[in-house]
Amino acid sequence: MLYLCAMQILDGKQAAHVIKSELKIEVAQLAAEGKKIPHLAAILVGTNGASETYVAAKVKACEEVGFISTLIRFEQDVHTGKLLDKIQELNTDPDVDGILVQLPLPKHISDEEIINSIDPDKDVDGFHPVNVGKMVQGLPTFIPATPHGIMLLLEHYKIDTKGKHAVVIGRSNIVGRPLSILLGSNTNPGNCTVTTCHSQTKNIKDFCLQADIIVAAIGKPEFVTADMVKEGTVIVDVGITRDVDPTKKSGYKLKGDVAFDTVAPKCSWITPVPGGVGPMTIAALLKNTYKSCLQKN
Amino acid sequence: MLYLCAMQILDGKQAAHVIKSELKIEVAQLAAEGKKIPHLAAILVGTNGASETYVAAKVKACEEVGFISTLIRFEQDVHTGKLLDKIQELNTDPDVDGILVQLPLPKHISDEEIINSIDPDKDVDGFHPVNVGKMVQGLPTFIPATPHGIMLLLEHYKIDTKGKHAVVIGRSNIVGRPLSILLGSNTNPGNCTVTTCHSQTKNIKDFCLQADIIVAAIGKPEFVTADMVKEGTVIVDVGITRDVDPTKKSGYKLKGDVAFDTVAPKCSWITPVPGGVGPMTIAALLKNTYKSCLQKN
Repeated sequence: MLYLCAMQILDGKQAAHVIKSELKIEVAQLAAEGKKIPHLAAILVGTNGASETYVAAKVKACEEVGFISTLIRFEQDVHTGKLLDKIQELNTDPDVDGILVQLPLPKHISDEEIINSIDPDKDVDGFHPVNVGKMVQGLPTFIPATPHGIMLLLEHYKIDTKGKHAVVIGRSNIVGRPLSILLGSNTNPGNCTVTTCHSQTKNIKDFCLQADIIVAAIGKPEFVTADMVKEGTVIVDVGITRDVDPTKKSGYKLKGDVAFDTVAPKCSWITPVPGGVGPMTIAALLKNTYKSCLQKN
Repeated sequence: MLYLCAMQILDGKQAAHVIKSELKIEVAQLAAEGKKIPHLAAILVGTNGASETYVAAKVKACEEVGFISTLIRFEQDVHTGKLLDKIQELNTDPDVDGILVQLPLPKHISDEEIINSIDPDKDVDGFHPVNVGKMVQGLPTFIPATPHGIMLLLEHYKIDTKGKHAVVIGRSNIVGRPLSILLGSNTNPGNCTVTTCHSQTKNIKDFCLQADIIVAAIGKPEFVTADMVKEGTVIVDVGITRDVDPTKKSGYKLKGDVAFDTVAPKCSWITPVPGGVGPMTIAALLKNTYKSCLQKN
């Protein structure tokens, strides 16, 4: 049998570019009207390489669209109290619209305590329990950046999700779980029948083979292989792992949770890694910060 | 082919009785030690028949286990401000451990505004966004009474859920959605692969036929029929609808979301209606109130 393959790329770089261009115009408009410009404050503890990269990308994105950004660094051995004091200062600073604390924090600090100390109205990462609860209940809130970015990507490419079967692999608090909720909500995109798979799922392949949409968010490189995917599936790959590759100048290659080369030919749409979910995560963070600023304007 | 059927009843009345007996002993112990006794305050607006019944059952259950209960009634046309004042009073009353507002409220009052005004530490119904968020994140909180009651019922009967495929029909904020989250959590009971179906799901029968556990929570009498269920399934029926039945003294018969008579013979375990999820909902509410009291003791 001959399959006429019409695989298309869910180009996160491109979609994020469109969102950022729109934001840039809106920020310029705010400035022209003498109104407040969005201001994101990012806190980075220690010198973890990946965290440095992520925060740098967020700060750069702020600059691109005309936001103000403040990067606040702390030593690896900072006391919790000092972090809490800084967050309290940012909470009460009327110029700051969004506060993000780059995770993971060093082991002596409780992620939970720090996140819960952020004013929910400035919690543009959407990790505060009250914002998570509002998301579940379908109330206006800040949706966590990665799931929000994925929903924006599906929206950008007008992917038909209503009544489709979405299989989400992974149940983390920052991706799998909120995304399962969003995809199953009475929204557009949304209204999927959602199956959430995880480490205790016995037969992930059987579930994937039934899926119209697969979201892979488990952090296992090339976990989803071609034999797990039916023809025409939409695939969103959240994974991003550095794999040693001596042939590369950097010494490593970025791998997603999906074996792209063999899976892509079977898909209707698929995100690349890099250039898929990553740029959309940043775009979603910017949108959240802009929204927070508007609520003050 | 001959099926040796070993269907057993998930007897909510019995399991709730056990939980209440345990609570009664613990409350007597608190009293003997001169400590504070749990106190639930219930607010009822108007005279809706079903709401009257539910609140009366909750107050009666409090009496059974030795809790203090206060029932506060308002007229159907009460102003929101008056309700908010009362909730504020209960929030600050150190004797009150749990506050519940019987829903639905009259149309001129926002459920959301009222629920959000309850101190999350006294929100024993678990409807406040911050408590919903904590549940999603697996943090200690008050879990909404119906899903909590279902988890307690599965625990009581030692139902093996790990790695099982649970199909939850319904995505309401008070049952389907939180239960989907709980069943999929890394807990015991829990660790199911969960598929959440709803009004936009195209082929509910296909999903149900694959399920090891089915939870029906859509409020459509006898929606789940025998042809939708494979042999050996565990079924939890959350539905409870009054159906006109002139042969009954009351004039009606209570029907669940599952066609019990024909489905039960195929099940390994099934909840009856009434006497399944209903009593467990009340038991869970009592447990939440007790927990709230302990946090003050």
